[in-house]
Amino acid sequence: MTAAVSPLAPAGFPEIEPIRGVRLATIEAGIRYKGRPDVMLAEIAPGASLAGVFTRSATRAAPVLWCERALAGLPSEPLDTGAAILANAGNANAFTGAAGTAATERLAEATANRLAIPAGRVFISSTGVIGEPLEDVLIRERLDALATALAPGGFDAAAEAIRTTDTFAKGAETSVSLDGVSVRITGIAKGSGMIAPDMATMLVYLFTDAGVARPLLQDMLASANARTFNCITVDSDTSTSDTVLLAATGAAEMAPIVQPEDPRSALFADALEWVMRELAHLVVRDGEGASKFVEIRVTGAADDRSAHRIAKAVAESPLVKTALAGEDPNWGRIVMAVGKAGEPADRDRMTIRFGDILVAENGWVSPTYVEAEAAAYMRRAELVIAIDLGLGMGASTVWTCDLTAGYIAINADYRS
Amino acid sequence: MTAAVSPLAPAGFPEIEPIRGVRLATIEAGIRYKGRPDVMLAEIAPGASLAGVFTRSATRAAPVLWCERALAGLPSEPLDTGAAILANAGNANAFTGAAGTAATERLAEATANRLAIPAGRVFISSTGVIGEPLEDVLIRERLDALATALAPGGFDAAAEAIRTTDTFAKGAETSVSLDGVSVRITGIAKGSGMIAPDMATMLVYLFTDAGVARPLLQDMLASANARTFNCITVDSDTSTSDTVLLAATGAAEMAPIVQPEDPRSALFADALEWVMRELAHLVVRDGEGASKFVEIRVTGAADDRSAHRIAKAVAESPLVKTALAGEDPNWGRIVMAVGKAGEPADRDRMTIRFGDILVAENGWVSPTYVEAEAAAYMRRAELVIAIDLGLGMGASTVWTCDLTAGYIAINADYRS
Repeated sequence: MTAAVSPLAPAGFPEIEPIRGVRLATIEAGIRYKGRPDVMLAEIAPGASLAGVFTRSATRAAPVLWCERALAGLPSEPLDTGAAILANAGNANAFTGAAGTAATERLAEATANRLAIPAGRVFISSTGVIGEPLEDVLIRERLDALATALAPGGFDAAAEAIRTTDTFAKGAETSVSLDGVSVRITGIAKGSGMIAPDMATMLVYLFTDAGVARPLLQDMLASANARTFNCITVDSDTSTSDTVLLAATGAAEMAPIVQPEDPRSALFADALEWVMRELAHLVVRDGEGASKFVEIRVTGAADDRSAHRIAKAVAESPLVKTALAGEDPNWGRIVMAVGKAGEPADRDRMTIRFGDILVAENGWVSPTYVEAEAAAYMRRAELVIAIDLGLGMGASTVWTCDLTAGYIAINADYRS
Repeated sequence: MTAAVSPLAPAGFPEIEPIRGVRLATIEAGIRYKGRPDVMLAEIAPGASLAGVFTRSATRAAPVLWCERALAGLPSEPLDTGAAILANAGNANAFTGAAGTAATERLAEATANRLAIPAGRVFISSTGVIGEPLEDVLIRERLDALATALAPGGFDAAAEAIRTTDTFAKGAETSVSLDGVSVRITGIAKGSGMIAPDMATMLVYLFTDAGVARPLLQDMLASANARTFNCITVDSDTSTSDTVLLAATGAAEMAPIVQPEDPRSALFADALEWVMRELAHLVVRDGEGASKFVEIRVTGAADDRSAHRIAKAVAESPLVKTALAGEDPNWGRIVMAVGKAGEPADRDRMTIRFGDILVAENGWVSPTYVEAEAAAYMRRAELVIAIDLGLGMGASTVWTCDLTAGYIAINADYRS
């Protein structure tokens, strides 16, 4: 009933080179899954800058609260010690009360001791079942072996280790030349269900050997996040654990970028956003039960925020998403979803396009619209739905997938 | 795949007596459905007060815009002429541009001429396919026969005539004694969704022989609406056509209720709300693909608005709804949905109950919780999920259904 691997998956995991200043390791701790690695450790060398964004859920998990505090406690300067990221799959350590908080603290302290760094520089993520105690002892017992295995590269294994219901491991990288110095930006992500908007999303780890000062790095991350991970939605359900962490090791032979006016700043930010958008798309391509990858482009809205809310309303509408699954060019449901968004819209100024096909304009179906052409378009695996509201300059693009019987099967038939 | 009649349907349509001052008729116009009545006409005698609430969709249909204007144009006093409601099933006359507006106007004028009342006192509703021209001539040709057939009673036939993909006709009534005068409150509703991919639309018509002045009647309707129809959600998709109309004919032997301080006012408002809640529940019981009727009770929230947003977030979460379909006591997903609502919540002060079963408290699963007991409870057809936030006095109850493969089949497997 549900595909072993999403039909929207890329051909394979990309070839990703090591990032100077980053070492990785994975290990099998047997937290929930058996016979596969389920813990990832990333060690970041001294001299790095770190940035992060997290879920805004009011019921966010203990590791997220830990990471928020740890990030807030970092100095603006490059770190004079190393740092680390420890992530496990199979148990989210969410809604686990004081016991969950203690488990996170023990993991951070044990990792800090093993790597001889402060506990406040160990970032913890947990993803998986909500409400069950995390047997952190299983991880702590393997920490020495995990740390011993640390080595450059291995992003593919790291991406595999943090999978839960993901049907494929997700990675992306790019490089950019900054005043003749080539720096590399690499990321891995996990996420498939409980993927929702409005905030940072799932687990994403980004690494670069560029040198970027921490306040600027944080601004770049937050800004790109608003246009990438905050613009995807699989099922409108926001996780308790969403985490995006970015480590800039500064290992490249370059003076750190400190000011946004530095010409290298925009180049780096664009490359960072490219990697984040790639990863965001990969998460949608692995949406639970997904058979279509759909871009919702809203233009002509009153402002960008309004455009984003309308794009989200369309992307999250069960009636739109089931029509997409049924390959039905049901533009009436798009009109409905625009209307329910609670944002300015005028029936008579709106245009709707499926790809290049003009569907509706002047408050009604276009005279050039041929249903058979639209139906043929809808059979594609990748779709663009463009809505122009004709009101202003506001624009937003959101990526989503369809809602299929596979989603019901995954979520009604199994405990996640 | 989908039930001929919802498993949550009541045993049958209730016995409903005529309302003095209201005459009904139905007819087969063949707008979309063949071999069944698809148009309903209600004639309201002079002396009535009318109230209404409508969808706030920015893309609402031509008949809704017409009704809004008509209602705004009514005097505060009881009407010195009759009024009418004309509703058709099969075509929503939504997103049909200027042609749709003209069709609505022609219907109102033709009905007004036949009944010798002003066109501004004819309320029009259309429900069904979106974006296709309404062949209003089919209705206008039958108007004379329709008006000739007007007679007291016949709420069952009227409820049948406005069905689209509803699996059963919906009606409710009650009576209340006001200073020794028994008055009757009756309502019919349609709403569920679509078998062909059209717009789900809720139409509700309420009638009473009580005399209630129009401003007070409108306040009572809006207030009860906020706690009834605005508290149900099948799939979070707001129709372009939702309409609730209430006619108080004043035919009962009573002095009209004018002031909210009148002791009869609260009695009447309570009875009105009871009928509206019954009808709202019937719409949920006919939710597309529904196998569970679920009450989400939120208490202890910062305020009522906050409680309502949290209850809606839980009721509309695809992950919660699929867990309900799978009869999985997955309280972790409820925690997630509370967290994503964007409202104040504190993990450690929250309690969650399934029926009488205490599931979670103090930020974790309750020590008394036995999963097998919760699993047994979830197999019931009617469920109560109670969430107390432990923060304040805000409360809200929302009714919803589960999300099953039947919903996907209804909305993805058929072409418009």
